[in-house]
Amino acid sequence: MSENGRIIVLGGDGFCGWPTTLQLSQAGYDITIVDNLVRRKIDVELGTQSLTPIETIQHRIRTWKELTGKEIDYVDFNIAEEYPLLERLIAEVEPQTIIHFAEQRAAPYSMKSPRHKRYTVDNNINGTNNVLCAIVESGLDVHLVHLGTMGVYGYGTAGMAIPEGYLDVKVDVGDGKEVSIDIPYPPHPGSIYHMTKTLDALLFYYYNKNDGVRITDLHQGVVWGTNTPETLMHPALINRFDYESDFGTVLNRFLMQAAVGHPLTVYGTGGQTRAFINIQDTVRCVNLAVDNPPERGERVKIFNQTTETHRVRDLAKLVSDLTGAEIRYYVDPRNESLENELIVHNEQFLALGLDPITLSEGLVTEVIDVAARYKDRVNFDVIPPTSRWTADIPLDKVGSPEPVEFQPVI
Amino acid sequence: MSENGRIIVLGGDGFCGWPTTLQLSQAGYDITIVDNLVRRKIDVELGTQSLTPIETIQHRIRTWKELTGKEIDYVDFNIAEEYPLLERLIAEVEPQTIIHFAEQRAAPYSMKSPRHKRYTVDNNINGTNNVLCAIVESGLDVHLVHLGTMGVYGYGTAGMAIPEGYLDVKVDVGDGKEVSIDIPYPPHPGSIYHMTKTLDALLFYYYNKNDGVRITDLHQGVVWGTNTPETLMHPALINRFDYESDFGTVLNRFLMQAAVGHPLTVYGTGGQTRAFINIQDTVRCVNLAVDNPPERGERVKIFNQTTETHRVRDLAKLVSDLTGAEIRYYVDPRNESLENELIVHNEQFLALGLDPITLSEGLVTEVIDVAARYKDRVNFDVIPPTSRWTADIPLDKVGSPEPVEFQPVI
Repeated sequence: MSENGRIIVLGGDGFCGWPTTLQLSQAGYDITIVDNLVRRKIDVELGTQSLTPIETIQHRIRTWKELTGKEIDYVDFNIAEEYPLLERLIAEVEPQTIIHFAEQRAAPYSMKSPRHKRYTVDNNINGTNNVLCAIVESGLDVHLVHLGTMGVYGYGTAGMAIPEGYLDVKVDVGDGKEVSIDIPYPPHPGSIYHMTKTLDALLFYYYNKNDGVRITDLHQGVVWGTNTPETLMHPALINRFDYESDFGTVLNRFLMQAAVGHPLTVYGTGGQTRAFINIQDTVRCVNLAVDNPPERGERVKIFNQTTETHRVRDLAKLVSDLTGAEIRYYVDPRNESLENELIVHNEQFLALGLDPITLSEGLVTEVIDVAARYKDRVNFDVIPPTSRWTADIPLDKVGSPEPVEFQPVI
Repeated sequence: MSENGRIIVLGGDGFCGWPTTLQLSQAGYDITIVDNLVRRKIDVELGTQSLTPIETIQHRIRTWKELTGKEIDYVDFNIAEEYPLLERLIAEVEPQTIIHFAEQRAAPYSMKSPRHKRYTVDNNINGTNNVLCAIVESGLDVHLVHLGTMGVYGYGTAGMAIPEGYLDVKVDVGDGKEVSIDIPYPPHPGSIYHMTKTLDALLFYYYNKNDGVRITDLHQGVVWGTNTPETLMHPALINRFDYESDFGTVLNRFLMQAAVGHPLTVYGTGGQTRAFINIQDTVRCVNLAVDNPPERGERVKIFNQTTETHRVRDLAKLVSDLTGAEIRYYVDPRNESLENELIVHNEQFLALGLDPITLSEGLVTEVIDVAARYKDRVNFDVIPPTSRWTADIPLDKVGSPEPVEFQPVI
């Protein structure tokens, strides 16, 4: 056993899971990864691959051991379907923390078809419920750290800044009396994927209340960037970079598009304001969450894991100014407000010492070291969007570069 | 096609589903029942049976046809697992309404073991998601009526009456400004089963917002009683009556216990206040909901489907006064407040013409016609509670007739 304790990382082969695993291993934790490699298999389904040439999980782990002498355990099973293996693993490892990245995480993928909607709900909810159920059954005091999303909030109310998980409200209880209550922020999900994260939040609320499970839920913004100090230690440790329209995050997509000379695909007016975070800060935040668990008996601890907000069209302009890329406006495949404001509280991580990497400082490195370097691996077919939120959006207009009149239903 | 239109009743063989089916058939709707008979199979698992001698679904339907000339269609499949059959059925029937009773509905059963927790989440969430997904896919404007529970609310705040689904709150948005928003009532579920109904509510919220699905969610109280005018038309149409500790509702359990000379099993201090409704009013309310759908574009319509509230120990006293039964206090297997107040708004159904059957008028009939008549069918083994909410409740104290010191965690 290491000096720091044992952690199970569910989904430890993924975009956030892999660099988190390496940093925690480097920090002295003993890590066991559970991953059924479904993210790699979905690349096969979509006819794409990571822009960066990622190695097999076995090769990654072997390289890490050669470089650092540190062992990472790996088991391949499906936490949503193979519950007995999860119970047994927890009994064997006796982890102090379980980090849960093992969910289908792409909004567009969750909207592709009934099969994708149903897979996302089935996988994410049964996975989370199984983890919680197995923690209770183990009788161990395990701290669960879950990667959630800023998307559970919707876009705030009347210019109000979005708090970290809980909202103080006043309720009229009759006879002219008002009481103040502190409620979980009313969820307003924007896709089937985001909806599953709001369902997760209720699972956490219940298991925390009934069974006293200690839980941290990280409401994360849109991640950009690729590597961390640990994934840069050796080419075989490189992190994945998703550039296609389903799993690629908006800024990473723009960087790749600029690198290959494809116009930047802005949806609608590009007036959507989003919260962002660099992958290196993601990893640091998860580490801070692991090291600062809620007390026994404390309610679910919620952090807004994000460092800055930007409008999508401003990001496109930034990338365009940096690279000379053309900007094109596409029919928005999402059922969303085309223009929104977003102000987000994130004081908790700052108070724990997070010193964020800003977009302005990290962007040039990212373009040169990753997007430009691996641009020959791009499949142009998977750049335009192909998923749509409702049947109201004409199929032949999804991925169409001429902006058309489309009023979302929201 | 009948004069009124076509309805699919999911779970149409169950306690609420069967009498609802008969009343709607009588009212001129064409009904197709979908039921995988899992409720009858769970009776096999629990070593129990309905106190009333219910016939097979085939025999029930045949009898109804002989009596009234009305046809009820029946198909046997699992809506949570056999999605393609659901899509095909909706395309074939083209229903105007789907009524969704097809969920695992017992809180104690949902808490029995990891298997039961996981079954309840998997069955209820995938079932509901499949129905919503199939409605969207059909392209039809189907009204979904779902049987929910008062248990999603928890027990209110500071003496406030519980509204019908939505709560007006004031939020401080900074600069001394306050705004009023109308939010879904913050959920506070009391068991895994109740939790699944709060997850359902988010599925409804999302599919209504994104796809415009018209949805009515009925937040029902604890049902008591057995028969309705239609199920009384012939012995082969009799409704089920659950008396064991998992599926039996509290008042029906007391009635059966009095009939067989078993002490009334009050949990804790019996200070829990619950909302109640007679099965005949359940059926009438569902019918009213079917006939009064929300407008296209309207948000999810939520009714509190309940007619009176009582403390459990007062109900025990009522039954004891009526029958001479002894009252005994048992260790509460639930993780709940032992004493709570409950005030519930239910003006919407009253405004639609509901004239409730009160406990005081219906109780005597129920004791004589059902509990006493079928008392020889009782298995005494399944009367005491066997499920417990947390491992803190000692296993040998669950179902123990001596009240012991037990402080719930809430």
